[in-house]
Amino acid sequence: MKYNILTISREFGSGGRSIGRAVAERLGIPFYDRELVNKVAHETGFAQEYIAEAGEYAHVKSKFAFLLSVGHSAHMHGHTAPAEYIWATQSRVIKSLADQGPCVIVGRCADYILKDRADAFHAFIHAPKDARAERIVRLYGENSEKPIKRLDEKDSKRKIHYNHFTGQVWGMSQNYNISLDSEALGIDKCVDIIVSAMKGE
Amino acid sequence: MKYNILTISREFGSGGRSIGRAVAERLGIPFYDRELVNKVAHETGFAQEYIAEAGEYAHVKSKFAFLLSVGHSAHMHGHTAPAEYIWATQSRVIKSLADQGPCVIVGRCADYILKDRADAFHAFIHAPKDARAERIVRLYGENSEKPIKRLDEKDSKRKIHYNHFTGQVWGMSQNYNISLDSEALGIDKCVDIIVSAMKGE
Repeated sequence: MKYNILTISREFGSGGRSIGRAVAERLGIPFYDRELVNKVAHETGFAQEYIAEAGEYAHVKSKFAFLLSVGHSAHMHGHTAPAEYIWATQSRVIKSLADQGPCVIVGRCADYILKDRADAFHAFIHAPKDARAERIVRLYGENSEKPIKRLDEKDSKRKIHYNHFTGQVWGMSQNYNISLDSEALGIDKCVDIIVSAMKGE
Repeated sequence: MKYNILTISREFGSGGRSIGRAVAERLGIPFYDRELVNKVAHETGFAQEYIAEAGEYAHVKSKFAFLLSVGHSAHMHGHTAPAEYIWATQSRVIKSLADQGPCVIVGRCADYILKDRADAFHAFIHAPKDARAERIVRLYGENSEKPIKRLDEKDSKRKIHYNHFTGQVWGMSQNYNISLDSEALGIDKCVDIIVSAMKGE
């Protein structure tokens, strides 16, 4: 293979996780999503549900408030703030998984954490909002919140979290080796393109 | 074909123009680059070299100064500022070229101008700075300015021009259906991916 490691970043509801899983199956390599959360939970002692959320989403809506909360927490307890502690552990776990061999890692700023590995290929999956809204209702069902509002909240939290920890802008083409609109191309085509790029065919 | 129109936006030195030309050849459809400049020059009465520059690059370095210059010019002469006049003409020429049938259009915010056409596919080509610096020296030769400085100036002017006229951020994945790192993938592979996406194979 030309690349050993694939990181997938994605807009909520774009099918990025499904694309990552399919690429891993096609290449016969591990797919790290839930396992990664469990490892970080185990190493930090936090609950898995807390890590699933805190490792990828900002807990507040503005970067300013997020920074305040991080600073405040560190000051109050006299040790590293939970968000920073989780970030450090998660970064270490992601680097260690990549060291173990070829794999696919979804989300969690893995593109940034592994940016200096020459054998890592970084993909971003996005889609127009109406296509994503339709997809999340189909996959996760309806709830009391309007799908567009759910999308906006999830994306906004991912964006703030990413920008805070990486100093980069989430979704900028230049952060990734490939960015694909899964609605215009289709999920299967996205899988084909990424598999072929990984193999260097 | 699944898509009739391809727009290519690109970082300076990324090979975007070469990729666009190769896709047009493979699909047997017209490639608009110089012809587009000539049409806009003809319709506006400005010199071709002026249009080549003004239709894609901001003439000053900050958005604030650019806006001031546009406003000032409009006020001084009592008619639409040259930049706005060129933008309007260029938009009309691009829409008219797309109406005439399948084609490839490079640069000039064509992605934004044709964003409502369902048969248009929008690509962004980028590459790490060192790869682009090497490429521009190989293609255009050395000059008194350092290649990295040439890249930064060109990209900065394109970015300001794009952001001013479209209200979008130049290079954001979500503006395009596909964004490709021509260094990681290789120029030929970028051509293959885009041709295949256009055909809907």
